[in-house]
Amino acid sequence: MDKCDWCNLSEEDKQFQVYESKCWSVFLSDEQDYIGRCILVLKRHCNSMSELTGEEWEELHNLVCKVEACLKAVLGATLCNWSCLMNSFFKDAAPNPHLHIHVRPRYDKPVMLNGNTYTDSEFGHHYGLNKSVAISDNDKEEVFNQLKEWMNR
Amino acid sequence: MDKCDWCNLSEEDKQFQVYESKCWSVFLSDEQDYIGRCILVLKRHCNSMSELTGEEWEELHNLVCKVEACLKAVLGATLCNWSCLMNSFFKDAAPNPHLHIHVRPRYDKPVMLNGNTYTDSEFGHHYGLNKSVAISDNDKEEVFNQLKEWMNR
Repeated sequence: MDKCDWCNLSEEDKQFQVYESKCWSVFLSDEQDYIGRCILVLKRHCNSMSELTGEEWEELHNLVCKVEACLKAVLGATLCNWSCLMNSFFKDAAPNPHLHIHVRPRYDKPVMLNGNTYTDSEFGHHYGLNKSVAISDNDKEEVFNQLKEWMNR
Repeated sequence: MDKCDWCNLSEEDKQFQVYESKCWSVFLSDEQDYIGRCILVLKRHCNSMSELTGEEWEELHNLVCKVEACLKAVLGATLCNWSCLMNSFFKDAAPNPHLHIHVRPRYDKPVMLNGNTYTDSEFGHHYGLNKSVAISDNDKEEVFNQLKEWMNR
């Protein structure tokens, strides 16, 4: 769709693409408030979960399994928090949401990256909103490379 | 599973059951911070989205469509926020989560029930955590009856 930013991602937008299937792309999120947080974006413009085709829904299941397995294997995630919200689109006068799904890995133990320690201080509780992002560029790159490698083995 | 409360719901627990399919139950949530908020509970003990069978996943899609259509038709919801979190189970020493999915309808206009007005004051933003619940018992009963009737037409 012409006017949708999510339908017209630039190469820069795609630099943190971890994986691509027929119908979906997986990106490492800009926000790394939870280490390894990703976003699953449908490659077709679609407004809501209800409008997914059978094929897109089935592929989503495969992707959920693969991403959960990856976050557990690579980063030691204890569980994953999944959400499909799309609230921000509704600030517009003419909302035109593009379907995407957030996954936040949650950790009962600290994650170690290049000697730095990242703790999920809300473990056992709802994920925090507006957490300050503390990850270094170097550690983000490391997470990206590890997830991408595992997902594309 | 013997030790799981969600596998052994009492008749009292089920009093706000809106709908039942082969694999899933839909309940009106105790929390009505967003009017019509529901919870989809798998009827089988299962720890995570990854472990859903093909049949359960396919039925979930039908249910997502049906619940979204219901919340839009009955209550005038603008969109729905979907989430699968399960954090609370991980407060236990031996976590044994039972798969469930939250749906919070979001509203760009106030919802009217029996002359009372309910406003989604965070519309366009992430749902609020720990909102004070303001709905009356009477209005909750009204929402339950309307959703149940629509879902079982």
